[in-house]
Amino acid sequence: MANQIYLFSLIFFSVLLYQSTNVLSFRKSFDLAKPCKRFVFHLHNVAYDGDNMDNATSAAIVNPLGLGDFNFGKFVIMDNPVTMDQNYLSKPVARVQGFFFYHGKAKFDTWLSWSVVFNSTQHKGTLNIMGENPFMEPTRDLQVVGGTGDFVMTRGIATFMTDLVEGNKYFRVKMDIKLYECYY
Amino acid sequence: MANQIYLFSLIFFSVLLYQSTNVLSFRKSFDLAKPCKRFVFHLHNVAYDGDNMDNATSAAIVNPLGLGDFNFGKFVIMDNPVTMDQNYLSKPVARVQGFFFYHGKAKFDTWLSWSVVFNSTQHKGTLNIMGENPFMEPTRDLQVVGGTGDFVMTRGIATFMTDLVEGNKYFRVKMDIKLYECYY
Amino acid sequence: MANQIYLFSLIFFSVLLYQSTNVLSFRKSFDLAKPCKRFVFHLHNVAYDGDNMDNATSAAIVNPLGLGDFNFGKFVIMDNPVTMDQNYLSKPVARVQGFFFYHGKAKFDTWLSWSVVFNSTQHKGTLNIMGENPFMEPTRDLQVVGGTGDFVMTRGIATFMTDLVEGNKYFRVKMDIKLYECYY
Repeated sequence: MANQIYLFSLIFFSVLLYQSTNVLSFRKSFDLAKPCKRFVFHLHNVAYDGDNMDNATSAAIVNPLGLGDFNFGKFVIMDNPVTMDQNYLSKPVARVQGFFFYHGKAKFDTWLSWSVVFNSTQHKGTLNIMGENPFMEPTRDLQVVGGTGDFVMTRGIATFMTDLVEGNKYFRVKMDIKLYECYY
Repeated sequence: MANQIYLFSLIFFSVLLYQSTNVLSFRKSFDLAKPCKRFVFHLHNVAYDGDNMDNATSAAIVNPLGLGDFNFGKFVIMDNPVTMDQNYLSKPVARVQGFFFYHGKAKFDTWLSWSVVFNSTQHKGTLNIMGENPFMEPTRDLQVVGGTGDFVMTRGIATFMTDLVEGNKYFRVKMDIKLYECYY
Repeated sequence: MANQIYLFSLIFFSVLLYQSTNVLSFRKSFDLAKPCKRFVFHLHNVAYDGDNMDNATSAAIVNPLGLGDFNFGKFVIMDNPVTMDQNYLSKPVARVQGFFFYHGKAKFDTWLSWSVVFNSTQHKGTLNIMGENPFMEPTRDLQVVGGTGDFVMTRGIATFMTDLVEGNKYFRVKMDIKLYECYY
């Protein structure tokens, strides 16, 4: 019995010790190929051109400065529909609200902060994505920094791929969102 | 003794196994009703109107585009006092610094990124809140994505309720901030 | 043997219990002096003045409102080089892309959201930093809310110190970035 109490204590304190080194300042790896939740969908951005108020889903609120040929300084706010397939006319499953701006002097480059807003029978809640978006690259990763509702406290990675760009009028982005912390 | 070593190993590796599935890409639930820290207070926003420089706590740096009737494109930066009760004249317990902008074509809607800055004998540090804020809804949740000082590395949910709106001049928001990760 | 099964169960369920209280809404402390990864480097910001397009690394896209003497309302976007030492001419190890704006009526004060972008043989990936930056203070902490690539899912604290300010033309900031969650 004494042995067992000794054993119990030993194990209990090993666990505590393991835990205490575990909390923060930790170094771990995990399998990026196994998210706890994943969404793949397509975002449609129809830019306001002064004449398409009904259709426009985004608009520049600050115009380019004229610094280079890549829209440097253009600041855009948006309320864009998101669909399961590439068809703009498909039923939206979410909306993406937020902003992005162009900051490349010698090439196209943007920075963004977006909320994916779900309000359907299937999902209610938001995901917040932010970071650097060098959209001329074939793929780029951004961080999902948080969420609310069905996605409360979530974190993950959003991989963006440009489907289509039609000048300054329209673009479509494939968003592959992988969540690695799921609470509900 | 051999048995006990066997037992010890068994338990030890069960724990390790349990832990390893636990690190990321995890699926867990937790009790939203039990934050580790909670603050309820009221934010006061006095908009600059060209004539109230001394009192103003926020100002539009980009004006509405004229796209619809809901201030679309208005971009506001702020340094707003926060009080424990609804009285604007009460002693501030924190300030909220950051920005928000209106992006609704057919209704009022905003997106925001704010830091709550505490600098009192009671609390020193910041909380960072961001996300979609459809302020015509009775309540809306935003994500607390991080913090510093007393709130270092924290995360949580901020539930906003509009207390009062006086045209474009003044609004007051009740902020119910629930932290679910606390390190100090 | 029965005793041992009993003991095993006891320990196993203690661990489970300990874990279940551990997931979220937890209250822990950790050693801020022991990050799992740390970077110290210097950021250089050369403001666009209308005449230095080749050298400029940042530009105001919204000018000050004229509310006070501290650039209130000035909104700056940037693509700034980061070096290991204070010399602007040293080889950049990363770039910082993002924005900041001035929101102080009675003193200099800024709010920022930045991505540190690494693209070298040594590191590939990004860190996202955000928060209040009262840059007249000797040091200030901001939250690292996420990352991608080599820094996937990371979190931490970035301590900023102003090295040098030359009017509105140039400033240099020492960034001491301490990560407390490392996955790779």
